[in-house]
Amino acid sequence: MNDNTSSPTTAPVSTAIPTPVTLLGAGAMGTALARAWLAAGHPVTVWNRTPVRAERLAAEGAVVAASPAEAVAAGRLVVLCLLDDASVGEALDGADLTGRDLVNLTTGTPAEGRKRAAWAAERGARFLDGGIMAVPPMIGAADSGGYVFYSGSSELFEEHRATLAVPAGTEYVGADPGFAALHDVALLSAMSGMFAGVLHAFALIRREDIAPGDFAPLLVSWLGAMAPMAHQTAAQLESGDFTKGVVSNLAMQVAGNATLLRTAEEQGVSPELLTPYMSLMERRLADGHGEEDTTGVVELLAPRKG
Amino acid sequence: MNDNTSSPTTAPVSTAIPTPVTLLGAGAMGTALARAWLAAGHPVTVWNRTPVRAERLAAEGAVVAASPAEAVAAGRLVVLCLLDDASVGEALDGADLTGRDLVNLTTGTPAEGRKRAAWAAERGARFLDGGIMAVPPMIGAADSGGYVFYSGSSELFEEHRATLAVPAGTEYVGADPGFAALHDVALLSAMSGMFAGVLHAFALIRREDIAPGDFAPLLVSWLGAMAPMAHQTAAQLESGDFTKGVVSNLAMQVAGNATLLRTAEEQGVSPELLTPYMSLMERRLADGHGEEDTTGVVELLAPRKG
Repeated sequence: MNDNTSSPTTAPVSTAIPTPVTLLGAGAMGTALARAWLAAGHPVTVWNRTPVRAERLAAEGAVVAASPAEAVAAGRLVVLCLLDDASVGEALDGADLTGRDLVNLTTGTPAEGRKRAAWAAERGARFLDGGIMAVPPMIGAADSGGYVFYSGSSELFEEHRATLAVPAGTEYVGADPGFAALHDVALLSAMSGMFAGVLHAFALIRREDIAPGDFAPLLVSWLGAMAPMAHQTAAQLESGDFTKGVVSNLAMQVAGNATLLRTAEEQGVSPELLTPYMSLMERRLADGHGEEDTTGVVELLAPRKG
Repeated sequence: MNDNTSSPTTAPVSTAIPTPVTLLGAGAMGTALARAWLAAGHPVTVWNRTPVRAERLAAEGAVVAASPAEAVAAGRLVVLCLLDDASVGEALDGADLTGRDLVNLTTGTPAEGRKRAAWAAERGARFLDGGIMAVPPMIGAADSGGYVFYSGSSELFEEHRATLAVPAGTEYVGADPGFAALHDVALLSAMSGMFAGVLHAFALIRREDIAPGDFAPLLVSWLGAMAPMAHQTAAQLESGDFTKGVVSNLAMQVAGNATLLRTAEEQGVSPELLTPYMSLMERRLADGHGEEDTTGVVELLAPRKG
């Protein structure tokens, strides 16, 4: 499943002439995508609501279309990188999408991806939704680690795999057109939790004679070493046995939380980023699951449908 | 500063006979420590409030002391691994600590470490506080990645470095006896944030046909790749310029949070683990810091003293 290590040169290419790409949207991300394809020799047709951004790309070899319909008419592969899902509907209203391959890299939710896929099918287009796990400077940069989740038409993905692999790695996660956005948002949500924890940690040392630059490597190593605990969480969720492999059980972790809270108080740091998770652990403990790992918190966040 | 890669064999040893170790506390962690020292040939004297746990170690070669005072009298290096700081005071009440080297691995806060250091000094003992970044199964296991933060007497640390390096790596973080606990709690707090994010992520995919075991590797890779952003946070905190190197600024991140919240709602997942961080970002944005990174959240968590 993991394709993000494959390089464009090892992916199959059907002809020697790079596939033409139509791109709707030339914001920071769209511009980075266009530059990556231009650099790899792909003919690029671009449209942007604010023409000046598209014109900047014209100087670099892109053809600027006067309208989305004109851009869509220029080629089969149409990449969408717009502000939001509503912008996609507005831009493509009236364009003839018959026989087109739409690759939607516009940020959205899983439900938006699914609705947009049905909308595309009604208009005779194949559809692939994408979730970009990169910031613009990572696009087109070799070994940046950036990649794009894709879901939806596997035929479209396989056919355009080499072209899609030009700006960033590719990771196809299934036929459900909502899965790209779902994977994207799930990873961003986890990262948000990690960054919240990191900021709390920096706040704790703030008033002490500890250089943030000396502390950061310890923090980065620790988080990198502990992140693989997610494999155990996954195994517990798959088996339904949340005590599987547990080392520090919920009862012990709840007891340990008191030290984290007292330390925050001593250091004059608000505990607000820590307390919601602690409250969920306490609720789960009160429900009699002290011997489990913290995995049961998932039950409280998303109870199974009854 | 980073000593956790040095192996016991490369650290200086003063004699061919391993240093005797007195250990107060034979819970899960104390027992793991005792076993690591016994395996390396150190004479170990152990006391535990509940004698049965200490007696188990006697079968493995430890000498069991009838009281903390007797244990302390057995040797100079005294390692404390008790339930909490109050237990340390109770256990050592009445013991003669003159000339002893106390290494306190009992979980506590920075203030407790500082108070306990002053208490030890009054009793004629040198003092080193420790924060264990490992679970018991990692103790004594080569390359487990586990280590112990130490702070306080650098003389004590240097003198017993080889012995302390037997159960786990060592990381000395300064003369302030509160710093070991502070580093420990800061890393655990960051980890708590990361795990909260991980559980939210698993909750998001829970009702979908996505195997947790397929999702976990993506999550682990992503968190590992993003954790080094903490280096940039550190650079921003050191310079005081929170716009330094920013790629996705606060205004963009606040806008992006809406997609995370809508996705949680679509997937039937409570957003309670995400919202406190988002609220702090919004407050900072409302204060006019949209061009900054999210680092300014540290200002809200721990305002500088006026």
